[in-house]
Formats: sequence, C-alpha cells, structure tokens
Amino acid sequence: MRFSKCYVKTLKETPKEAEVISHKLMLRSGMIKKLASGVYTYLPLGLKALKKVENIIREEMDRAGAQEILMPVLQPAELWQESGRWDVMGAEMMRLTDRHDRSFVLGPTHEEVVTDIIRNDISSYKALPLNLYQIQNKFRDERRPRFGLMRGREFLMKDGYSFHTTTESLDDEFENMKGAYSKVFERCGLNFRPVEADSGAIGGSGSQEFHVLAESGEDEIIYCTSCDYAANVETATSTINHLPKAELLEVVLKDTPNVAKIEDVVEYLNVPVEQTVKAMMYKDMATDEPYMVLIRGDFEVNEVKLKNIIDTVDVEMLTDEELEKYGLIKGFIGPYGMDLKDIKIIADPSITEISNHTAGGNKKDTHYMNMNYGRDYKADIVADVRTVKVGETCPKCGGKLDSARGIECGHIFKLGNKYTKSLGATYLDENGKTQVMTMGCYGIGVSRTLAATIEQNFDDNGIIWPSAIAPYTVDVIQANMKDEEQGKLAEEIYKELLNNGVDTMFDDRDERIGFKFKDGDLIGFPFKVVCGKKAAEGIVELKIRRTNETIELSKEEVVKTIKDLMKQY
Amino acid sequence: MRFSKCYVKTLKETPKEAEVISHKLMLRSGMIKKLASGVYTYLPLGLKALKKVENIIREEMDRAGAQEILMPVLQPAELWQESGRWDVMGAEMMRLTDRHDRSFVLGPTHEEVVTDIIRNDISSYKALPLNLYQIQNKFRDERRPRFGLMRGREFLMKDGYSFHTTTESLDDEFENMKGAYSKVFERCGLNFRPVEADSGAIGGSGSQEFHVLAESGEDEIIYCTSCDYAANVETATSTINHLPKAELLEVVLKDTPNVAKIEDVVEYLNVPVEQTVKAMMYKDMATDEPYMVLIRGDFEVNEVKLKNIIDTVDVEMLTDEELEKYGLIKGFIGPYGMDLKDIKIIADPSITEISNHTAGGNKKDTHYMNMNYGRDYKADIVADVRTVKVGETCPKCGGKLDSARGIECGHIFKLGNKYTKSLGATYLDENGKTQVMTMGCYGIGVSRTLAATIEQNFDDNGIIWPSAIAPYTVDVIQANMKDEEQGKLAEEIYKELLNNGVDTMFDDRDERIGFKFKDGDLIGFPFKVVCGKKAAEGIVELKIRRTNETIELSKEEVVKTIKDLMKQY
Repeated sequence: MRFSKCYVKTLKETPKEAEVISHKLMLRSGMIKKLASGVYTYLPLGLKALKKVENIIREEMDRAGAQEILMPVLQPAELWQESGRWDVMGAEMMRLTDRHDRSFVLGPTHEEVVTDIIRNDISSYKALPLNLYQIQNKFRDERRPRFGLMRGREFLMKDGYSFHTTTESLDDEFENMKGAYSKVFERCGLNFRPVEADSGAIGGSGSQEFHVLAESGEDEIIYCTSCDYAANVETATSTINHLPKAELLEVVLKDTPNVAKIEDVVEYLNVPVEQTVKAMMYKDMATDEPYMVLIRGDFEVNEVKLKNIIDTVDVEMLTDEELEKYGLIKGFIGPYGMDLKDIKIIADPSITEISNHTAGGNKKDTHYMNMNYGRDYKADIVADVRTVKVGETCPKCGGKLDSARGIECGHIFKLGNKYTKSLGATYLDENGKTQVMTMGCYGIGVSRTLAATIEQNFDDNGIIWPSAIAPYTVDVIQANMKDEEQGKLAEEIYKELLNNGVDTMFDDRDERIGFKFKDGDLIGFPFKVVCGKKAAEGIVELKIRRTNETIELSKEEVVKTIKDLMKQY
Repeated sequence: MRFSKCYVKTLKETPKEAEVISHKLMLRSGMIKKLASGVYTYLPLGLKALKKVENIIREEMDRAGAQEILMPVLQPAELWQESGRWDVMGAEMMRLTDRHDRSFVLGPTHEEVVTDIIRNDISSYKALPLNLYQIQNKFRDERRPRFGLMRGREFLMKDGYSFHTTTESLDDEFENMKGAYSKVFERCGLNFRPVEADSGAIGGSGSQEFHVLAESGEDEIIYCTSCDYAANVETATSTINHLPKAELLEVVLKDTPNVAKIEDVVEYLNVPVEQTVKAMMYKDMATDEPYMVLIRGDFEVNEVKLKNIIDTVDVEMLTDEELEKYGLIKGFIGPYGMDLKDIKIIADPSITEISNHTAGGNKKDTHYMNMNYGRDYKADIVADVRTVKVGETCPKCGGKLDSARGIECGHIFKLGNKYTKSLGATYLDENGKTQVMTMGCYGIGVSRTLAATIEQNFDDNGIIWPSAIAPYTVDVIQANMKDEEQGKLAEEIYKELLNNGVDTMFDDRDERIGFKFKDGDLIGFPFKVVCGKKAAEGIVELKIRRTNETIELSKEEVVKTIKDLMKQY
C-alpha cells in the first residue's frame, strides 16, 4: 500500500475521550473512529490488524478440530426465556421488537442459539463430541463503556461451544482448547498467562482465563516464578508455612487494653503473628445472614472467595452497630467463649494447624491465648478464603509466588449441563437411553486482544506491533522525495517485499523524513527501511521499532533480514 | 475435511417452509439453519461457500483501489435524523433504545455513517477521490421475509462508498466499480448481466444493476443478442421501426360501432397497427392529477417509467366512473377534438413520427383517422414510456432484443450530493473555497449471491457449485469401506489434493456408495474422485457433477486434471 493512497489520518493531539493508552494510540494513529459511546468504526489500518488476529484464531481453531459456523446477531427472546437468562441478563442485554412486536436480543453470547441448533440436529452419541465456533459481533449495553475497544458495546469475539457425552470427553476438549488458546496468544506475539479462574457466576466445574500481561490490566494475577502455576487473585492459593506443632496449653484470658489491631496484639502479648487468628464478621447481602471468618493474623480475606463459599452474589463486613447486636466488639472478636450458635463460622486452613494461638476475647480489651482449633472451637466450613500475597509459596512446586497485572482476553469454561438441561439437548447413548449432553464454552475477545496488544507494546512515540498482527510489517521510507535514486530504490524494495509476501507500506508522501518517522513510530510498523543518502550504492537503513536499532544493509539483504527478524519481533 | 468429522446433516425431505430451490437445497444439504423468520445460521458448508464469495469480492475491491473498513451495526438515530431518512425508512428499519434511552438503528445501509466519517476526516480536495468499502451484516425488517437467504432480515452485504470533487471523477469510479463487479461475478462462475437500472427512488444520476440470470429471478431483463446492451425492463428502451413518412391527409371521423379494442380497430378500419395510437388514462396517486398517455397501438405502457416521468410514488389507471367525469369513454379516447386542458398529455416517441394515424374519437363508437402529432395535437411531455418487448431493435447496435429473468445481486449508484449535502460533507477546493463532495455507492448482496448461484446451478439431485465458490471442490469417495487398497488410495489422493491447495472432502463414512453419491450430488461438489474396483491398479474414476461425465484416471493424473477442469467448471 502506498501511504499517499491509504486512508489514514494521524492526529498530533490525543482526543480527550481517551483514558487508556490503547484507546489513545488507536485514535491518534487513525485505526479506529468513535461513532457512539462504546461503538467504533475500524479504519483500514485498524481493520488490517484485527483481521490478522482473527485469522490466527481461525487457523488455530481449525487445527484443533473445531468447525466454523456463523450464528445470527438477532436472537428470538423465546430461547432466552427457555434458558432462564431473559430475566437474569438485565440492562446489559440489548433488546428490540420487530414490526410484528416479537421480541429479539442482540446476541451478547450464543449458548442458547448453538444449543438450539444441536438439540435439533444431534440425536445420537455417534455424532459427539463436537466443537463449533464463530467469529461474530457481540453486543453488551455496558453501563459505562470505556477504554475504547477494551470495553465496548459492540465488539468482535470468537466464541466456541463443545458438546460431549461424558465429562472425560469435555475434560479432553478443555485441554485441547487450552493448548489452542495458548498457541493463539503465542502467535500474536504476546506476553500472556493462562490462569486458573473463578467460575462461580457462570457455574460449571472449571475455567481458565488467558491474560495478556500489562501494567494497565484490570486484574491481578498470582503466578509462580518457578513453574507454570498461575491464577487470578480471586482463586489463587498457596502453601501455608505453619509454625511447628507444639504441646497444647491451657486457654488463658489476657487483658489487652486498647490493643485491637493484630500488629499491636503481636507486640503487646509478644506472640508471633503466625500464632494469631483474626475473626472477621461478614453478612450475606442476599439473606442478611452473618458469618464469622477466621484467618491467620498475617493474611487477608478475599471477598470473591468468600462469596463463592457462601454461594451468594455479594458480601459486606458488619458495621459496628451490627456487631453490637451480636454482642461483639471490633478488635476483640474471637471464636471462643461465647454463644455463637446464630453465626456460621468459616475457617481458612491457615488456622486449623496452629498450636496455642491467640484470638479476641469477646469482651472489650481482652484476648485469649493458647486456643486450639478442634479442641476449643470448630468451624462450620473449612475453606480457602485468603488472598495470596507476593512471596508466598507455590501450591504446585513450592517456588515463590509473584504477581502481575493482566487483561483478560480469553476465557474457557466447563459448563456442564447448565444449558443442555434447560434447553433439552439430549442424545441417545449406546443403550438407546436418553442422556443430557455435557457442554464447554470458549471465548476470545478479538477486538480486546488487539487493544491489549497495544497496552503491552508501546512507548512514548506510539505503538510497537508484534510482526504477526501489525497492519503492515514494513514502512519503506524515501528520505528525500526529490532524489530520483532514492525513489527508484524505494520502489524496487517495496515491490520486492510485496512479492515476497511481506505486508509493506511505502511512504511516498511529499513530506519531510522526520514527519514520516513520527507517523511510522505512531502507527507502529515493526520495521522501517529508509532509502537515503547511500541509495545510489544500493544501501539502505533498517530500523527496528522495538529496539531502536539501525542496521545498514545492501538492498539484496532486505527481504531475508526482515523475514528473519519477523520471527523475533 | 473428513466427512465423518464434518458437521453436516443432510435431509431427505425438503422442509415445508422452503419455497425456492436455493432455500430448499441449502436446508437439505445442511448449509444453513433457520433461527427465526428471515434469520439464518450458516453451518460449516454454507459458511465455507459464503467466505469464498466474500474473499473474491474483497480481492476485487482491493485490486480496484477501494479500501476496506468496518463500520458498526449500531448506528445512532441522530445521524438518520440529520440525513432525513429517520422518518422515511419506516417499519423496515430495525430500531432500539439503549439503557440510557438513546435511539439506535441496526444498520440497513451505511451512507450516513460513512459520510459522517468523511466529513470529520477529510477537509481538502487533496484527499479525494476515495473509495471505502466494508463487508458487514445488514438488517431489514421485511414485512414478509422469504426465499431463505434471498430475502432475509439479517444478511451479509459488501457496501462501498466513494467521494469525489467532480462528477467526472465519480463517472470514472463508477466505470471502475462496474468493471470490478463484473470481475467478481465472472470469478464466481456465474452467468450474469450488468443492466441499466431505474435509479428513480434513490435519486442520483445513474445506476447499474448486476443480475445473476435464473428462471426463478424476480426481475425481467431486456438484453441485446448482438451487443452488450442490457437493461431492467423498467428502463429498457428500443429503436422504433416507424412506417415510412407519407403526405399528411385530412382528419376524418369514422363510425366504429362497438369497435373499442386496438386489434378490432385495425381490422375494422383496415389500417396497420403501426398507424394507430392508444390513449391510456392514469392518475398520480399522490396528487390525483390525471394524465393521458399516448402510445402506439402495438406497445404497452410501463408504469415504472411513467412514475419516474411524473416523479411520483405510484400511478393507477382511471376507472370507468373517473373517465366519465372527464367526458371520456373507454375504448374511444383520443387526444383530438375535445377540451383536454385539465389533463396533461405524455406522448411516447413511438407516436410522434406516425403519418396519418388513427385514434379514439372521444365519442362513443367513433375513431378519427389521419391524425398527425404536431399538426392536430401536442403533448406536454414526450418521453419513453413503453415496455420493450422481445424481438424489438437494440437501441445501441440495431440487433434483436431478447429477455431473461434475473436476480439482482449487485447495484451501483451515482448518488451525487444527496447525503454529502444533508450531512455537510464538504472540502476546500484548490482556491480555498468550500464545496460539497459528490458521492457514489456500490453494493453486492454476499449472501444473496450465494443463493442466486444455486438458483442458477442445480438439477434434480442437488446443487452444482461452480468450483470457485464450492465449499469443497472435490469429494473423494472410498467405494467399499472394507477394502484396504481403496482406503489407502483414497487417503493418498485426499492428502495429495490438500497438499496442492485443492479444498477436498474425504467421504470416509461407513456408508454404501450410493448413499455417498446422493449426499455428494446434493451438496454439489464439482468433482467426485471414486476409489473403487481398480484401486489396486492405482486407477480411479473422476465424475464431473455438471456434465455427469465419468473419466478413468491414474492416481498421478488426478491433481492436474482437476486443476485443469476447475478453470472450466
């Protein structure tokens, strides 16, 4: 493509609407244009990059044995009523009625539609397993659309759905998809992590997120510095380093005047923090039921884990007034020595193995020492409810855990029979008995992956595309537009690159070289080939965007050198 | 692809909902599946064919210098209000409101959106001309969606828009697109005609339709058997073969008792039909204004042409009662001898050159003879208002005209400044003066082209795909699944074809050969390669779907022979 013919309008100033770097840079480099809040047009450069991501996904899905279909945007309300999601989805789902007053949904996802197809088409175990996917526009009426392509109202997704006769078959396909997803993000040239994820809300028995690592990411990921363990902070766990077991001593009530905070207790009573237990009071926001959560003094409660344990939509800590109703005083709450029969106790495994620990005395200015789980009190539920911290021990290999910020670009789920049951997707098994299918679902945000790529790959001057998804790999620049030798050479190299299948832009605009460099950096071509002063000798400069290196090359070396460098950048 | 792994479920019976052949065959061959009225899912085979059409279009658009973008489905109502189409589009446009009660449209077309982009991005003549296109879902709430993909509510279109400083530049791009469109339909392997079209309703100064010829087509096309002239019957014209001029005679009123029909007049008065004039009375349905249309006795009035001449939405013939109000009697109406000042006269050019013609006497049972246009009466408008018939003379080359039925799959328009003016898409010209851009628009129904292909290419057994857009080009069939030699050879040929870039299906199902043939014919693979009795000798049968020919080949000849045949079928 010749720059002079290409529809691309770069901006010097960042439009005010843009908050995050990918949004800013895509607007400034003329890749997207806003039509309405959360609704964007892809201009030629943006669409070229989007299509490259799309094609990588398509190739990897096909290779993994999934088959591409295309389901409609318009979905009849009846299907959503049948699955029970018509009422659940709320204002995020865009709805409309047709001229005959029939209700439709603009597909935010396609579980209902694909299950409807399968229940009509598949009747025998012989046709299973099956994995169907599509690359299609999705619609979600976000309350606050923002961050450009990161959180839009109309966006491109790859969504896939698999159907099985057994959970083992689903497990196999889940692993297959996990591999394919990793391949996709690798091929896109991204630094990413597959992480274990909370599958609470959507149900099902397992789920895995794929995060593109970037400082601007909305999610915190805990990962092991030694092995491949990685999990969303909402599900991450660690091995607890307990103090050695000791002989059990008698419980002693100690006066601890004004000593409420755990660090003060540790100091005042001179006990290691690993020998203390915090009692935190929460309530289930759906039922108002109170819960006492017990956790070691040096750990924090993870409210997402707590929600999943209780199986509710939201939890909140009790206020001081609410505590009073139960006869509890902030700073001195504990599981011992009072009637707690109306309060369920949830204990983190960090406390069940501590010998002779300290906890609140349930009277102002007192703490008990030498308490022991099992002997002195018991919990209704023992479950991991703590937030893992950097430096803790990997539950898989014993290595050190670290954390990073990530952007969730892919998510795969074992759905089980949630939709196949409500929509009646059954098959006849080998004995002619009717069985409900088991289902998995697999999503990648195509447009979001594009934005995440930029969040991970940029500098002050603009985007730094990985070669695999750059709109154009090479920017051929003629330094001086009046120099015929340079023009001839630029033209020759441009055509040579095109003939060798390298996506190339030729900046043939009648502009100064500095101006062209600026645009080239902003747009983020991985490589520039500058035909300048040594053009007459057939020598050009190759600039690598990511490293800022400049290499002098003879014209004959350009194609091979770039093809080699493309593997690296 | 192995048939045993492919998600395709063929049906023996035609679903009752299907009226036209493409709809029937796409349902029966498992290419599409209905989700709601006029809303379909593309299953793997259907999507593969659709993508092939899409890619041909994309390649030809890119080659013609158009640039691909992707505009949103969701369009804010404000833009449609600004262009004036919000009220005009009526119930066909699907509308919805978001959670903040803002109105949106599901794009039925994108003139407003693209013009909005251009008015914001382009300010100088230097950036023009420009041609942007997209391949995107469109939505139209048809009153009666039918014929499967032919007239759906959600469908795939390529729509392109060009912007210019001059009408000459628009004319050039129009020709450029005309060429590109022809290339698209040629490459799809279709028998088609570019035809001149009525551009009345959408406005603008010129338009051309691209029709795929098929007996089931909804449109009638007039074309020349000698040259490339072709036009929709609503715009087609012809050269009129007039009788030789003669000396003008005196008007004579003749009694013609009960002789009202033109063929009776001809017989009764013994005049050639080429020397008679019919007067037909119409009214403008918008204003109720009456019009007398004069046309030679052997021609018929084309009401679409008449509507365009009057510039109204609809016309209807006057009833006998209405005729009476004007003192006219059916069968004896003519332009002479009565006060017609309240009635506008429109004359077809077929009557202005007839010497001494006959026409109604404006009294019951009378006709005038020897009337002459110009001497005895005049029309307010002389314009082509007749329907061209098969056998008439080509207006371009003098050849014979014939007619065919067509399916409109493409349409290109010179829009002029209809949208650029209402939306204020202006630029600064070379003198720094603000000017309104001139615009063209170019559409291809991608999904409709797929359906039209089937309407043109089928037989009693199923679809006959042109190679260029067949989901798979070759169907490799192992005749006897128990025969190891056959299996080995089929596998070898399957892989050989794939390695040579030929889209191939291997029917490896454990079914009888007759069953496989039936499915193969229904799905419409252009070629079958049967590994049967002579497999051990390395000999296979190649069957050509279109001609039903069978050729015996050695395995070494398969790839080359198929590659050669693909150019032809």
